[in-house]
This record gives sequence, structure tokens and C-alpha cells, in this order.
Amino acid sequence: MGTLKEDAYQILQQSIHSVLPDTAVKRALEKKSFTKPITIIAIGKAAWSMASAAYEVLGNQVKQGIVITKYLHSKGPIANLLIKEAGHPIPDKNSILATAEAVAMAKSLTEEDDVVFLISGGGSSLFEMLMPDISIEDVMDITSQLLKSGADIVEMNTIRKHLSAVKGGRFAKLCEPAQMYAIVLSDVLGDRLDTIASGPACADTSTVEDVQAILTKYELKVSDALMSALQQETPKEITNCEIVITGNVSHLCSAAASAAKNLGYQPMILSTSVDSETKEAGKFLASIAKSIQKEAYPLSPPCAIICGGETVVRITGKGKGGRNQELALAAAMGIEGLPNTIITAVGSDGTDGPTDAAGGWADKDTASQLRELGYDITSVLKDNNSYEALKATGNLIFTGPTGTNVNDLYFILCK
Amino acid sequence: MGTLKEDAYQILQQSIHSVLPDTAVKRALEKKSFTKPITIIAIGKAAWSMASAAYEVLGNQVKQGIVITKYLHSKGPIANLLIKEAGHPIPDKNSILATAEAVAMAKSLTEEDDVVFLISGGGSSLFEMLMPDISIEDVMDITSQLLKSGADIVEMNTIRKHLSAVKGGRFAKLCEPAQMYAIVLSDVLGDRLDTIASGPACADTSTVEDVQAILTKYELKVSDALMSALQQETPKEITNCEIVITGNVSHLCSAAASAAKNLGYQPMILSTSVDSETKEAGKFLASIAKSIQKEAYPLSPPCAIICGGETVVRITGKGKGGRNQELALAAAMGIEGLPNTIITAVGSDGTDGPTDAAGGWADKDTASQLRELGYDITSVLKDNNSYEALKATGNLIFTGPTGTNVNDLYFILCK
Repeated sequence: MGTLKEDAYQILQQSIHSVLPDTAVKRALEKKSFTKPITIIAIGKAAWSMASAAYEVLGNQVKQGIVITKYLHSKGPIANLLIKEAGHPIPDKNSILATAEAVAMAKSLTEEDDVVFLISGGGSSLFEMLMPDISIEDVMDITSQLLKSGADIVEMNTIRKHLSAVKGGRFAKLCEPAQMYAIVLSDVLGDRLDTIASGPACADTSTVEDVQAILTKYELKVSDALMSALQQETPKEITNCEIVITGNVSHLCSAAASAAKNLGYQPMILSTSVDSETKEAGKFLASIAKSIQKEAYPLSPPCAIICGGETVVRITGKGKGGRNQELALAAAMGIEGLPNTIITAVGSDGTDGPTDAAGGWADKDTASQLRELGYDITSVLKDNNSYEALKATGNLIFTGPTGTNVNDLYFILCK
Repeated sequence: MGTLKEDAYQILQQSIHSVLPDTAVKRALEKKSFTKPITIIAIGKAAWSMASAAYEVLGNQVKQGIVITKYLHSKGPIANLLIKEAGHPIPDKNSILATAEAVAMAKSLTEEDDVVFLISGGGSSLFEMLMPDISIEDVMDITSQLLKSGADIVEMNTIRKHLSAVKGGRFAKLCEPAQMYAIVLSDVLGDRLDTIASGPACADTSTVEDVQAILTKYELKVSDALMSALQQETPKEITNCEIVITGNVSHLCSAAASAAKNLGYQPMILSTSVDSETKEAGKFLASIAKSIQKEAYPLSPPCAIICGGETVVRITGKGKGGRNQELALAAAMGIEGLPNTIITAVGSDGTDGPTDAAGGWADKDTASQLRELGYDITSVLKDNNSYEALKATGNLIFTGPTGTNVNDLYFILCK
């Protein structure tokens, strides 16, 4: 064991390493062998790294391929693959053009082809082709009506999938009769395959009846072309696709547990689906830390209590910060004066909110140091201004952008 | 094992039983023997039950005594003890009169006396005597100034203790040279002995300098009499008192763990100091339940994850409910459809908020049942209207008032 900060840093580094796109893709391809020429289709923010790792493993078995990622997210050519950049989080012309190329590639496939489909977060925006005869203006109009109506995300996605020629399982269908092996880096808690990147390779559970119910419920006005598209059913069964989730928040937590164990801390994974409000999650973790140190519940030190998930920030101010920094700051109040304890919160993507930090950590001294520097923590939290405060006390964590995104890691480390 | 509800009910019953005033007092007196005539002083909402149990054990060793409890909280005569009822949560004339009798009793004691001092929550209001020469109007005036100034609870209590002739350790001093054995039923998370009932038997850590700093900070205006009282130091050392905490939230959780284990569930106490916002605590517990059922983290079923504490309700509506009912309702959303799981939240006092229920529970069907009955759970939560909704689905827990108060118990039970 080193200091708590040293150990925490080692744990978070090893955890993130385990879910890096290349590590994750190689893990998935280890178990798999292909006999036919391979087409690589990679979509999402991690598409370039995933494709690069896949090419490294599959090499000259790769016949062709296309990488569609966010602007500034590709890092050079990869052999014979097309590299395309496009808009995220809002699709743009390049999303449509690049997807058209992928679709053309898909349509050219025969049963003598295999497809390796690499899916990561951001795919919904980067990978889009509209159903025939509808325009982007049609889509913008109904999206705006839905937003005004107060429709929830499930309802929004039901409409979106039915308007898309590649979402809701339709892209897998386009690749028929080729067999597809889809490797998923999941940024969605609970790993719902029909949700990650809007499920291009996954049978859709939403139906035309669901669409009709939403149209009626919110009294939406749609053009004839739109209505005709909305009446076409998405695939309810996909037979040419095997899907594997190779990197997700569970991998992140398991790797943290292994790293903690190797350092001499008894690890316990508490939950991989934390979705509480940010500050309250920090407070909850602090209450566990107090029980560990005062009563040896749920474990005696040295131990590591590990959670994964994605908390929700309540915006009440105009400060700069991120959900992980805010969680750490809230935890700082809860563990003030509690010895031999550190609480760490870090985003696996390395960029927490609109900041250059990956997250933050807090120990017994953080709160008092902040007060000495003139910060009132309650006010800082209210202003969502965690970055500046944690910077002042040296409690920010920097990893740089990691190229992956499988949600966040939170852990309590106690000696 | 029975059904989840049957088992959950058995666990909560046994837990509450373990912290009932009489069980708790008898546990504390088991280890103790007295040689001198005993004076019983009992204060707080559980004073009657505690005194009654103490009398049962000590019997004719008891020379005299006084019970000061809340209106309607005494249940008849106890041998030679005076029974007094007074105001709570705001002290009234009867608080002052009854306390004067207790003080007279204290002053009459010699080194040939022993005191059994029974302390429970509510004591701050029920047990009060002002320092000489200051009036209740003086106290009301400074309290009102403090409230307007935004002073925190620690600052409020620092002033209050210095204005009281019985708080902040002063009552123990009044009993000198008699030896005192104080038995505490704790309603304060973390069991700070100088906080429970304002610490009448505990050396005070706040000083005259602290008082001066508060007066300056908030520019408070005080009369000469008040200033003279505020300049007198509270006891910094108490030599005639032994204090034992016999019932607190840790006992509650330990008893829940034993009960769960006896029923065949592997128990784990997660924290005894949960103090998050109510709905978010429910959500956090739900995220743990999901991990248990989906990934066997932190334990495989059958298991029981147990927490204690006191969550904080965010008032955003005008509905009827209590923090435990609201926690259960929030958890219901999080575990919708999750089989073999129940989440229970119950107040050890048996009266959750201004309702006749002790708390509530939720399982996989609760959320969908509510929707079928026309309730929108998000709206119900926003209106703080948990009672009506949980009543409609039969998800309220009733125990009746238990006569104890050691915070709340939350547990997840998974098969």
C-alpha cells in the first residue's frame, strides 16, 4: 500500500485501462475466429480506437471497412478502412453521408462475408439514415413537437427508431445474408442493447402501435411522408447477429475490485447502476465511509467499496464542474475529519463535464482546507462550481481524455 | 423463509423490539449494581417507559424520582415517582415547572445517593431551566435574532446551552456529590452525547469564546442580564457521571441483521448514518437491489442489505406522508419489475411523519400497480403525497407508536 491518494490513483487507472476500446475489443475478439473475409463497421465516439484494435487482431482478413466517429476523434488512417468524422451530439450532413457509405457497403455483402460491427456511445447521432421520402426537416419538426409535449426518452426513441433506416435493428437486416459479430462498448446503465447507439443490430421492442399511441397522446401533427414511414415496423427478430458487450461499467468496477485487492484492500462492489442525484450519492457514500471507520460496517479497513453508474446533477447555478467533481465535493462534507479515508469519483471518459479534469477526490481535510481558503462548500455546490474549489485544494483528478466511455466509477478507500 | 413481506415484517418487528425503551434500559442495568438509595430522573419522549423498566429492575432501591415526558406520553403512576408532562417540541411553563422539581431533587442529594438518569429524545424541550435573572422573553428574542441571522444548529446550541441551567453538563454538576449513571436512548445520528437532549450530563465542548464569536459574527443585540449569563462557562469536565448508550440506530441495525440471518438471509449492514435526501436514498438502495439480482453484487441472494439513519425530505408539495413512506415510494420506481426483492423503510418510533403508518415497502409490482390505479409516481413524490399512494396498494407498514425513537431502518431483502 502507498498513500490513499496513490492507491486510489492506481485503482482508477487500472480500471479505466480495462475498459479502453482497444483492451475491450481485443478481449472480445480473443474468443472468436472468422473464416470469411471481414467487413469492419465502427460507429461511435470510440469507433477509431475500436477499429484500430480490431484491425490489429484481424489484419489481412479484413476486406474493407468504415469508421464513423466524432470530429477530432480519429487518429489517422487504418489500412484499407474508410475514416469518416461527423456531428455529435447532433447529427449533421456528414453523419448522413458517412452512413450512406456504410449502408452501401452493407448492401453489397453476400453470405460469403462476415461483418464485425463495433458500437460505442454517440452512435445515435453519428450513424443515421432516414427512411425513404422523409426529410431532415420532417424529423426536426416532430422532434420539436415531442420536446414541447413533454414526451419521455422512451417515447422519443420509439419515434426516432421508426424514422431511421439503420436504427432499431434495421442495419443488421441490411447486412443480410452476411453474419454479423457486434462488439459493444456500453455507455448505457443496464446495457439495454436496443438503447446503446439506438440499437442498430438489435431487434426492436417498440412497435407501430406504440408509435400510434404516442401520436395520439400528444396530438402530434405529421406529414403524409412521415406517417407512411412511421407505419413501417422495425425488425422484431434478428437472426444474423451475435452481440457481445465487452466493456461496460461492470468491467470498470470489477477491474477496480481486482486492483484494490492487489493493493491489500478488501474489495466490495456495491452497485453498478447508481443513478441518484449527484450530491446525495456523495452523501450516501460518505455515510458508508463513516460506518466503516466507526463500526466496521459493511467491512473493516483496509477495504474498498466500489460503485459504478452515472449520477444526475441538479443544475442550480452557473459554475463550472462535472458530476464526478460535484460528487467528490459533496462527499468531502460528509467525511470531514474522518481519518484514513478517501472517496474518489471519476468519469471513465476522462472528461468530467465541460472541464479538463476526470473527476475528484475527497478526504478528511478537504472540507476544512476549502473553508480556510474562503470557500463555503454549500454555496459552491449550489453554484455547481466544483471545479474551482477542488482545483484550489489539489483535489482534481486528471487523466486526459481516455477514448472510452462506460460511465463513472466511485469508490471509498479506507485504511 | 416466508414470503418477502412476511420476512420483512418479522425483521422490522424484532429490530424495533431490541430498541424499545424497556428492553434497552434493562440491557443497560443488567451490567450494573447500586449500593446506595437511587433517585431516578427520566427525561424525554421515552421517559415513562424507561423509568418504568428501571423501576422494575431496581424496585425498592428507588428512593425517589421524577419522570418528565411529552403530553399524553405517560401511562399511569410508577410507585413513588413523580410523573410530569410538558411541552414538546417547544418548551412551555410545565417544562420549566417540572424541571424545577428535578433540580430541587438534584440539589438535595448527598454522597450517600446514586442517580439513574434516563435520557431520550425530546429532552431539550421538556427539560429546561434558564440561568438566573434571565427571562423567557430574553431567550425568545435572541432565538429569533439567531434564526433571522442564518446561524447554524451548532451555533444555536452553543447559545442555548450557555443560557440553560441544566444543559451542557450543568445538570450532572447539580447532582454532585451524588454519583450518576446515565442511560441514553439516542435519537441523534452519530450519538454525540453533548447533543442528545442538549447534553445535560455531558461535559460541554462549546465555550464562552465561541459564544462571543457568534454574538460578533451576527451582530446580535443582548440585554445585560443575558450577557451576564452568556459569560458563565459550561462544565468542561464531569467527574460524577458514567454514560451508556443502550439503544441507538446501530442496535436497530444489528438486530435487523440477526433477524435476517435467522430467517436464512445473509445480512450486511451498509451504514448506520444515512442522511441523504429521502428520494435519492431510495433510488440508491434500488440501484443496489438491481446489482444484487443482476450481478450478485455486493452479495448473492438470499441476502439482506441493512441501513440505518434519518433521511431528509425535500418539501415540494402539500401531500401527506413521511420520510420512510417517501423512501419506499422512490425505491418502487427503481425496482419496478425486479423479481424477488423488497425494500422496506420504517421509523423506529412507529409514526412516520404526521401519519398513522410506520413506513412503507416496495417490490417489483408496486410501481405498475400504482400506475394502474391512476397514480403518476413522479407527481406523487413531488407532492410529498406518499401515504395515499402506498395506502392504495397496501404498501404501508403499521406498527402503532412504539414508544422509542432511534431513527429509521431501511433494508433490501432479496431471495
